[in-house]
Amino acid sequence: MMRIDIATVREQIAELDSFGKTAGGGTTRPSYSKAWRQGRDYVRTLMTAAGMTVECDAIGNLIGTYPGTKPELPYVMAGSHLDTVPDGGSLDGALGVIAAIACVHSWHAVGYRPQRTVKVVAFVEEEGSVFGVGCLGSRFMAGEMTMDKLAALRDKQGRSLADNLADNDMDAAALAGGGINKQEIHAFLELHVEQGYELDLACESCAIVTDIVGIDRHWITVRGHANHAGTTRMDRRQDALVAASCLVQEIYEAAHASGGAYVATVGKLQVLPGATNVIPGQVDFTIETRAAHNSIMESVHHDIIARLQHSEARYGVTAAVESRHFSPAVSLGGAMVAEFAAAASDLGLAVNKMPSWAGHDAKIMANITSCGMLFVPSVNGISHSPVEDTRWDDVAVGLQLFNHTLRRVASKES
Amino acid sequence: MMRIDIATVREQIAELDSFGKTAGGGTTRPSYSKAWRQGRDYVRTLMTAAGMTVECDAIGNLIGTYPGTKPELPYVMAGSHLDTVPDGGSLDGALGVIAAIACVHSWHAVGYRPQRTVKVVAFVEEEGSVFGVGCLGSRFMAGEMTMDKLAALRDKQGRSLADNLADNDMDAAALAGGGINKQEIHAFLELHVEQGYELDLACESCAIVTDIVGIDRHWITVRGHANHAGTTRMDRRQDALVAASCLVQEIYEAAHASGGAYVATVGKLQVLPGATNVIPGQVDFTIETRAAHNSIMESVHHDIIARLQHSEARYGVTAAVESRHFSPAVSLGGAMVAEFAAAASDLGLAVNKMPSWAGHDAKIMANITSCGMLFVPSVNGISHSPVEDTRWDDVAVGLQLFNHTLRRVASKES
Repeated sequence: MMRIDIATVREQIAELDSFGKTAGGGTTRPSYSKAWRQGRDYVRTLMTAAGMTVECDAIGNLIGTYPGTKPELPYVMAGSHLDTVPDGGSLDGALGVIAAIACVHSWHAVGYRPQRTVKVVAFVEEEGSVFGVGCLGSRFMAGEMTMDKLAALRDKQGRSLADNLADNDMDAAALAGGGINKQEIHAFLELHVEQGYELDLACESCAIVTDIVGIDRHWITVRGHANHAGTTRMDRRQDALVAASCLVQEIYEAAHASGGAYVATVGKLQVLPGATNVIPGQVDFTIETRAAHNSIMESVHHDIIARLQHSEARYGVTAAVESRHFSPAVSLGGAMVAEFAAAASDLGLAVNKMPSWAGHDAKIMANITSCGMLFVPSVNGISHSPVEDTRWDDVAVGLQLFNHTLRRVASKES
Repeated sequence: MMRIDIATVREQIAELDSFGKTAGGGTTRPSYSKAWRQGRDYVRTLMTAAGMTVECDAIGNLIGTYPGTKPELPYVMAGSHLDTVPDGGSLDGALGVIAAIACVHSWHAVGYRPQRTVKVVAFVEEEGSVFGVGCLGSRFMAGEMTMDKLAALRDKQGRSLADNLADNDMDAAALAGGGINKQEIHAFLELHVEQGYELDLACESCAIVTDIVGIDRHWITVRGHANHAGTTRMDRRQDALVAASCLVQEIYEAAHASGGAYVATVGKLQVLPGATNVIPGQVDFTIETRAAHNSIMESVHHDIIARLQHSEARYGVTAAVESRHFSPAVSLGGAMVAEFAAAASDLGLAVNKMPSWAGHDAKIMANITSCGMLFVPSVNGISHSPVEDTRWDDVAVGLQLFNHTLRRVASKES
């Protein structure tokens, strides 16, 4: 039978994790670095051993191909990303890559071959740690990155993408060839750690992802009037920080009251002039909101605008808002959610559904193909940290379901 | 008669203001700078012309002496400070120095000499712009600055007080001589711009200062838990900024509700880690409170501690408080307030009383002698700004009252 050896998966994740290991026990494997290159070369050997032919696309996504019996059918892609945040964990991204290879390896070991060709991908630069653009590898593959956008990218040292590619003996000229042909892909499936508390608290081994939340980021500038902190009576102040702190409170309370419909965070806040004895004249802060449904995203946006206006009237300040980033919520509903559910049913597993509150390559790939995602728990909800962890019993269950789903999707013509 | 020529006062203030004039119309005359030295030399000529002998003490306070008919009596001192904040106005400090000289000059012009010797002082470094210690000159004169404290002072370039004195051909060794003998001083009187809105809004020409507010500065550190801004549900957050913003709000509302009993300001606030998509794990901020009565200072302090504790329970954070600076409120009540009031009555002027919400050299001098202060209005309440202004009609009224009071105090034996 096509059985996945979880001990081998565990060893392979540890081996991959050794590329970029930090003194503090975390992993720093930024795209295009030496550690990334070593990791990529290791993944290449695993893909080859699993019976795949391997290529690296123009931006650095590693792709292994396991030919189906009907190679003329659109292929199924599975995988995740190879890069990590600074001092991150061993599973974020890596688990999805190693798991997809393990599935194919188990088929190869017994000579099984589905109708559709299966490709395993190890995306580059999902975290955006190098160029500040999340999911750069999948964005390139999905055709979102024009040559102009690619040419404008700069890392923290001011070096271009071309410079980073050259470090890896890759030629930026090949970028002009663009991403994949979306007519040729049938579906994309990704296994990933949840990076949140929900599964761990509920003692669930895995969950089918139904939606990937939208993210809306605003930059708010509140202008009041800087003045003497002693001689200015309280009733004559236009204190930008008092107005901003009222907004921070209200935004938090409203999100809290939504009962999980959305989350909102003020993560960055700066006070000017920033002196102990001067009433703040200006405060700049960010608001990030996330929701699984675009109708909620929109109503939260309007709610924030209304609160800013109310704050202007109440505190005698002006509040300007600038949209910094908007990525709509993406529903994974339909085909692949049904495939995961059917596979769970085949295996006798009761698996819940949930939205993903973090962004993933699957969100980008959903723009060009049918996508499905499966989450396994993050112990204590911790990710992007050296202590990121998932129980191996849970990985085993998730991997079994992922494998069965991938085989189902790859073995069906429609 | 002993009449003060207000046009001359105006010209002298403009002349003094020319030393340190900035391109933007403000004045930058930091202690020990070339502009300060030029200003001091100009003031010396005015003192000499007013019949005074002039000396500069070891730290740089310029002192003119106009001998009384009974020089064995403790002397009366009058004046203010010569230094300015960066890009400050023409009146803050300078008015009190020029005004005191003008009083003596008017006496000298007609040969009038009071029983007590009158000394006019131009204090150095009241603003604390160079060494970060407000009222350094008067603190030295009042005996507050030990040699250890003086030796520890450093300017923004890391240079010592001795270095700054040497720039002005002064010898730091003389500092060991200390300040004045408090047995020899009878009173200190200061004329100053209000630096607040009250007199201007009330259309009053001047006011007698009854108290100088105490200042209490705290540094608060709120620690929560930095976490993912997407995957962390609102009800599982320990957001340090949400807790801190609640405190900013509460502190403001409580001060507002005090009806003028005290003011409170959060002027500086920093968020860590300070990323758009990370829940703030730590927020550090300052609270400055000012009140005219020490009993209020104390109850506000306890109120803040209670709010911090409440915040810990409400938001699951810890809130640590560190006292950074405390200077108690000082009452100028008694002798000199009565002298100003009696002088106003002599002149048929109706003059109100008020506290000072800013610190002044008179607050320091009150530790060693009986002090009195008179405020003239700040147009639109603005100070520490190039547009700082006072109507000359108001200066004339204030100066007339100041002159009469100084003469009253200097001409009485008890």
